[in-house]
Amino acid sequence: IEEDNQQGVAELLEDLHPADIAEMMEDLTMEEAKFIYRLLDGETASDVLVEMDEADRRRLLRELPSEIIVSKFIDFMDSDDAADVVADLDEDQQREVLNEIGDIEQAGDIVDLLEYDEDSAGGIMAKELVKVNENWNVATCLKEISKQAEEVDEIFYIYVTDDDDKLKGVLSLKKLILSNTNTKIANLYNPEIKKVITDTRQEEVAEIMDKYDLVAIPVVDDIGRLKGRITWDDVIDIVREEAERDYQMVSGITGDVESSDKVWPLIRARFPWLMVGLLGGIVSATILKTHGDSLSKVTQLAFFIPLIAAMAGNVGVQSSSIIVKTIASGVKDMETPTRKLLKDISVAFLTATAFSVLIFIYNFFTAGDLRLTYAVSISLFIVILFASLFGTIIPLVLHKFKIDPALATGPFITTMNDILGMFIYLGVASLFFNLG
Amino acid sequence: IEEDNQQGVAELLEDLHPADIAEMMEDLTMEEAKFIYRLLDGETASDVLVEMDEADRRRLLRELPSEIIVSKFIDFMDSDDAADVVADLDEDQQREVLNEIGDIEQAGDIVDLLEYDEDSAGGIMAKELVKVNENWNVATCLKEISKQAEEVDEIFYIYVTDDDDKLKGVLSLKKLILSNTNTKIANLYNPEIKKVITDTRQEEVAEIMDKYDLVAIPVVDDIGRLKGRITWDDVIDIVREEAERDYQMVSGITGDVESSDKVWPLIRARFPWLMVGLLGGIVSATILKTHGDSLSKVTQLAFFIPLIAAMAGNVGVQSSSIIVKTIASGVKDMETPTRKLLKDISVAFLTATAFSVLIFIYNFFTAGDLRLTYAVSISLFIVILFASLFGTIIPLVLHKFKIDPALATGPFITTMNDILGMFIYLGVASLFFNLG
Repeated sequence: IEEDNQQGVAELLEDLHPADIAEMMEDLTMEEAKFIYRLLDGETASDVLVEMDEADRRRLLRELPSEIIVSKFIDFMDSDDAADVVADLDEDQQREVLNEIGDIEQAGDIVDLLEYDEDSAGGIMAKELVKVNENWNVATCLKEISKQAEEVDEIFYIYVTDDDDKLKGVLSLKKLILSNTNTKIANLYNPEIKKVITDTRQEEVAEIMDKYDLVAIPVVDDIGRLKGRITWDDVIDIVREEAERDYQMVSGITGDVESSDKVWPLIRARFPWLMVGLLGGIVSATILKTHGDSLSKVTQLAFFIPLIAAMAGNVGVQSSSIIVKTIASGVKDMETPTRKLLKDISVAFLTATAFSVLIFIYNFFTAGDLRLTYAVSISLFIVILFASLFGTIIPLVLHKFKIDPALATGPFITTMNDILGMFIYLGVASLFFNLG
Repeated sequence: IEEDNQQGVAELLEDLHPADIAEMMEDLTMEEAKFIYRLLDGETASDVLVEMDEADRRRLLRELPSEIIVSKFIDFMDSDDAADVVADLDEDQQREVLNEIGDIEQAGDIVDLLEYDEDSAGGIMAKELVKVNENWNVATCLKEISKQAEEVDEIFYIYVTDDDDKLKGVLSLKKLILSNTNTKIANLYNPEIKKVITDTRQEEVAEIMDKYDLVAIPVVDDIGRLKGRITWDDVIDIVREEAERDYQMVSGITGDVESSDKVWPLIRARFPWLMVGLLGGIVSATILKTHGDSLSKVTQLAFFIPLIAAMAGNVGVQSSSIIVKTIASGVKDMETPTRKLLKDISVAFLTATAFSVLIFIYNFFTAGDLRLTYAVSISLFIVILFASLFGTIIPLVLHKFKIDPALATGPFITTMNDILGMFIYLGVASLFFNLG
């Protein structure tokens, strides 16, 4: 397609949406991508950059001089996107780029935004918003809004502040249009407004906006001054990221890979948890080795090793993913810890009973040795009980120590419970066959 | 709290957001919930109902007479929410409620919406929107908009249609305000508009809105007539639901449970996949039984059963969740099927080589019997290769037959691969020990 036919390519690009161009870029080499960027106007180029995959973007930025980054991208961006781009650069380049920005106000906004933790409301908000003073009237407002609106992609809400820039309330564009031009804003706005503070965690922001169906939420500092706003598209990204991280954890994949990725990233994403599984398998083998006598005397014991391991693993993954999801949803639990523990124990107890009865019935009719039947049922009972409690407790403990509880889903809990399962199974079996 | 102190409770409720009331309702009995509803005004009551958990809502509606459902809820709802509520009722009650609705236009909207598949754009869109004719001028538009705006919660975009109600383009409120009142709409609107058709799948709608950062998208019928619009909050719900379903599948949980649920739903959600695991364990036991001779002669073979099973399971879950995520993301793959298959085989091959070499080294130094070392390594190699390919191929086949590919993640693939692993392991071992 691309034989330096500048004219043709430029025409082709004109009809495409920035998001489509960004998607296309991912399949191109660095040289081809640079060639495309040269053909795009600033507005489009900056939109494409925002839509691009983070890793690709970082690589591209590293190759560009600071003047180009500013004149081609930063100048056309909203403050939140600009701050993201600057944050991706190394420190020297950051300073260069910031000094290159002509508009001192924009540079200041970016510096402000870089101060905040990137997972906090401050880190994801944009400085661009439309605000009016409560003492103005409708006519002044409309004039002021058309001035401010140039910098803002979509207005959504108009925020009302007092003389100290403290957030007082919100006003819809609809209401403003339908009101008499002499009416004072103070009489129009809605003072009941949901807002977040700059250091609110981004997950909490997403929850609030989702719960109250807000298309944008204002961000204030500790003393209530309006600092920025977060819009719905940021929230979708948070929800998606969160869900994806949990999904990857439970599947035992590290990093964000898709089947269209190259061979090497795919292997790298799989390796760590498979390594954990391998080490777990070696530990299990060692446990079995110490019971080598029992196994050689009663070969039938070996038959149920996969069953015990599978049940231990599955129960553990279920328990851990239920509790991780509950922690993530952030719902304050009304249940007291004791009642909660009692309930978890009853669920585990009933599940354990059901499945050990089932396997008892099966073995009763198929296995010759009644001792084996007892040993398998009883150890399955104990294994399910412990696997279930471990699955619940370990994520809770991790959460307590501020470690991501999702770490303890998937292969981690499966491996732990495999080992636990072997330990219990052969311990119980030894008792039954007096092989201690 | 609730000793029929109507006055007190009513005052308390007044200060709460509908979403908060809905959250509170979930902990109340049916009688208490009904009591609360009686205290709420229609606008709030209907908002609370929309925010409520689906199962609770259904139970509540079943207990209320049709007149109350209409006068207290439907009359205050947007068409999409009203259609959802009506869809929850049984057929007789549906007819009663629809006949009870006074506003014939609203009843018609609901009937229209009920026609669409609930997972399609038509099924999630609302009829309420603001539209203007391309032949009007700005002044007429503003007048018309203030009339239409009463029924619409948030305007977001103004849609421009021709005399046949066909969608021509979109206009922002901002642009309208900043334009001269005599300007004709035809000269103002943006004709490049993203839209979906009534039978577009909801996942695709979510993707388009997310990709192009649209806060609302218009829905047209097959000949381009404007039928409704879908707003960002519907999309968040879709994204969340999709992510949760996949997460549940890979964790082996059926149904949407949280740890705060009661004992019985928790057990019910866990039972089906544990049952699959149990049956798989029994099959594995049967396979091992047919190799009972080998196991009794070479007890050490049993030591590595958990390792082989764990690796088979983990590799399978990884492969299946990567491919399921890729299918869900809906990205059209540029790779040809042959290249894709070749790549998957190389990933599986390299992973299998790495781990069989690792276990070879471990066993070489710890296991006395070189035949065991060979048997474990070689079967681990074959098991990883097959587990990986099965993990990729089964979801693809399910997808081909229009079955949810996520079914083949988690316990399903683990169980399958456990069985496969035992089969391969003992087959290979038999060869090495000449025990066939």
